[in-house]
Amino acid sequence: MDINSDLGESFGAWRMGDDAAMLRVVTSANVACGFHAGDPAGILQTLRGAAERGVVVGAHVAYPDLVGFGRRNMDPASHELVADVIYQIGALQGLAAAAGTRVRYVKPHGALYNTIAQDERQAQDVITAILAVDPGLTLLALAGSPLVGWARARGLSVMAEAFADRAYNDDGSLVSRRLPGAVLHDAEQVARRMLQLVQTGELPSISGRRVRIEADSICVHGDSPGAVEMAQRIHATLSGAGVALRPFAV
Amino acid sequence: MDINSDLGESFGAWRMGDDAAMLRVVTSANVACGFHAGDPAGILQTLRGAAERGVVVGAHVAYPDLVGFGRRNMDPASHELVADVIYQIGALQGLAAAAGTRVRYVKPHGALYNTIAQDERQAQDVITAILAVDPGLTLLALAGSPLVGWARARGLSVMAEAFADRAYNDDGSLVSRRLPGAVLHDAEQVARRMLQLVQTGELPSISGRRVRIEADSICVHGDSPGAVEMAQRIHATLSGAGVALRPFAV
Amino acid sequence: MDINSDLGESFGAWRMGDDAAMLRVVTSANVACGFHAGDPAGILQTLRGAAERGVVVGAHVAYPDLVGFGRRNMDPASHELVADVIYQIGALQGLAAAAGTRVRYVKPHGALYNTIAQDERQAQDVITAILAVDPGLTLLALAGSPLVGWARARGLSVMAEAFADRAYNDDGSLVSRRLPGAVLHDAEQVARRMLQLVQTGELPSISGRRVRIEADSICVHGDSPGAVEMAQRIHATLSGAGVALRPFAV
Amino acid sequence: MDINSDLGESFGAWRMGDDAAMLRVVTSANVACGFHAGDPAGILQTLRGAAERGVVVGAHVAYPDLVGFGRRNMDPASHELVADVIYQIGALQGLAAAAGTRVRYVKPHGALYNTIAQDERQAQDVITAILAVDPGLTLLALAGSPLVGWARARGLSVMAEAFADRAYNDDGSLVSRRLPGAVLHDAEQVARRMLQLVQTGELPSISGRRVRIEADSICVHGDSPGAVEMAQRIHATLSGAGVALRPFAV
Repeated sequence: MDINSDLGESFGAWRMGDDAAMLRVVTSANVACGFHAGDPAGILQTLRGAAERGVVVGAHVAYPDLVGFGRRNMDPASHELVADVIYQIGALQGLAAAAGTRVRYVKPHGALYNTIAQDERQAQDVITAILAVDPGLTLLALAGSPLVGWARARGLSVMAEAFADRAYNDDGSLVSRRLPGAVLHDAEQVARRMLQLVQTGELPSISGRRVRIEADSICVHGDSPGAVEMAQRIHATLSGAGVALRPFAV
Repeated sequence: MDINSDLGESFGAWRMGDDAAMLRVVTSANVACGFHAGDPAGILQTLRGAAERGVVVGAHVAYPDLVGFGRRNMDPASHELVADVIYQIGALQGLAAAAGTRVRYVKPHGALYNTIAQDERQAQDVITAILAVDPGLTLLALAGSPLVGWARARGLSVMAEAFADRAYNDDGSLVSRRLPGAVLHDAEQVARRMLQLVQTGELPSISGRRVRIEADSICVHGDSPGAVEMAQRIHATLSGAGVALRPFAV
Repeated sequence: MDINSDLGESFGAWRMGDDAAMLRVVTSANVACGFHAGDPAGILQTLRGAAERGVVVGAHVAYPDLVGFGRRNMDPASHELVADVIYQIGALQGLAAAAGTRVRYVKPHGALYNTIAQDERQAQDVITAILAVDPGLTLLALAGSPLVGWARARGLSVMAEAFADRAYNDDGSLVSRRLPGAVLHDAEQVARRMLQLVQTGELPSISGRRVRIEADSICVHGDSPGAVEMAQRIHATLSGAGVALRPFAV
Repeated sequence: MDINSDLGESFGAWRMGDDAAMLRVVTSANVACGFHAGDPAGILQTLRGAAERGVVVGAHVAYPDLVGFGRRNMDPASHELVADVIYQIGALQGLAAAAGTRVRYVKPHGALYNTIAQDERQAQDVITAILAVDPGLTLLALAGSPLVGWARARGLSVMAEAFADRAYNDDGSLVSRRLPGAVLHDAEQVARRMLQLVQTGELPSISGRRVRIEADSICVHGDSPGAVEMAQRIHATLSGAGVALRPFAV
């Protein structure tokens, strides 16, 4: 099983997250590319850390919305979205080469992530962009979303991810953040759930049913001390149970 | 001889230059990378045009100063400048791959160009960046500037350029734009001077002496109708005299 | 009757429109505030021109989307949109004071204009922002749109505008740009229509019916030579017929 | 005596400093205007806090360099710098009006602060900008710098500030940050020094001599827990000694 997290999200004088700590937990790092977060110097530093620890690097591409941290919906034209995604992947590839590593996958961020999980037009644009810059890249997508099928239909390698701290509906979709119980805060409970997922391929839904989640990777957060601790707990629980943690993309 | 010009300098809704016309004149295109000009969609369009016409592509890297068009001096720290240059080259490499071509050289833009021609600290940072992302890239530099030697000393391939519409001092340096006569406006005169440069390796200085200019490329402008016409005249004059026009980097 | 147009939309080295020519045609200038277009130095220059010619100034507020020229939908949170609009109005007020004039109205731009004509949440946010910074400001809104009523209900002064070069449906709404005939290109026809509007309060709809348009101002464009010419024709036709052209806000 | 600090320096999703804590310590808040830090929504929140606590607000104007936090030298042309400063003051005035307060002074930030303390061209540009937008504003400047005289010569009200955590040379200038001992870290020592400054108008220089510092305000930092604690200590020490703490500008 793979563990991924968002890294390189500091910007200039502003810090976000504890990349050094998270690089000891994850096997795959979704590294910001400058559109929602990340300045070149900070990104390069994170990439060097990833290279040192053998953490695999993905391009965490986003809408061009720094002040909104890429979390606000936008409706770029297709020729804009395609080029924006290529630009970000390329920029990260350049920095990765300088850090002695390379970009192996792409994970859209924030509003773009949520949009392309369901919106086929923007999804196809992102797929077009990835195929145009390097068809050997893998797309990391929401488990169970239509995006997985759209990308595979065009020959793109896709890996699916589950979210460690999120509750799931009976149909395998995420419980909306607007509903109570959507986000789990108990690190011990979250770690046990992830072990269950790895061992059985299933999770208890918010209503208590068993729901199948086809996940190749577990997404964890690192943007607060509590989040880092939860990520460490998941890592320790899985490792302690003999689960091999290794990057999905090599 | 090679003819180069700055392209891809439109931004969003704003047009600059006539890339389609200039791609019929130049053999090398210095393509903006988004820091002083160029948005991803516009850059990609220019790169596609360059690929179609067999024009070689270079990364026109700059300070991060969109509103100042990269023409204002800045003093980035070395770790910032190195990463900024890598980021821009990488972004252009990604877009170039999508356009079916690739980046073969780097030409710094505006204030960065002028600064590193003389300032060793920033020059070494740019050299470090180019070597880090791809040591096979060529640097296009001001003929006669110290930068040429600094880059060659570190094993970087360097090509030197002359400016078609600029007057030269007796020592081969450019006459400052603040002085009268620094910029030449007569297309016919400029074309004749460039033919002389190609045939003899020399130009008359502003004081009338013959001065040696070691140039592998001629830089022309395309940001006004008059500039495009001058570039076309130079192209026609050189071609008409049997000068083979071809990119310096292949 | 008032004639308004979008001005101050150059950015740094990039020119857009012919502000000097348009300042001789319009009575009200919607001046960009830096979010979709306009840098402070360029805005100040346009404001000085407006002050010299007695053209009234409005704040042309937009989403923060320079590369998309404010034409792409966004979904800012209310606290973001309110503060963004206040910031832009304030910035323009500062520059207007320095130019010897002042901001008298607000006209949202592009995607924000279209959105708040119909979307009540974002409309209320813009109204809140205007009232917070200066309740004496007037809102310039699309004639016939729900926005007019929402704003008046909160005590905000509203003026309505018609678009000179656009066709209207039978219900007084604009024909969608995606449909044929939506945009009128014949300057003479457009000028005659605007004279009819001023004299009768009515325009022929795209189906040929007479439709009532309650307009206090006519919006004209200046972003191409043809657009400037059309604006001049409208001005000449209205003036020639004895229509008093004067700003709606004083 | 007045105590001032830099506030409103968060940006979008990124936090910087503890504005709520600092608003209980300072009498004057230098609020970021969006060029080096601060987004409109965050700035507005800080201004509301300042209004609630009766803290006087100043515009913390900067070079347009978000990624460099305004700490890198730039050489804007005069018409650019003048307009940039006006724009920032105006934007903050708009937000301040919405928060129920108003901008009473201007304090340049970072590289602009350091540059105009000594560089007359840029200093005159900033003075021109302040006078153009509101001649009733006060400039907060480095005690002992040439800027103080330049501004007063043009009729601008000037207040001078001392830095609580910095060592001074015998001539009253700041010890360069590059030298050992330039920055003081002992909160108790710093608080005692500030009390001495308030009571005697003098501080011991780094060589041990008594040096006269004409300061109307003390600048403290709040960008780390230790900095907040030092600021609180200074406030407590001065208050405890009966020093009246009140804003210099009213």
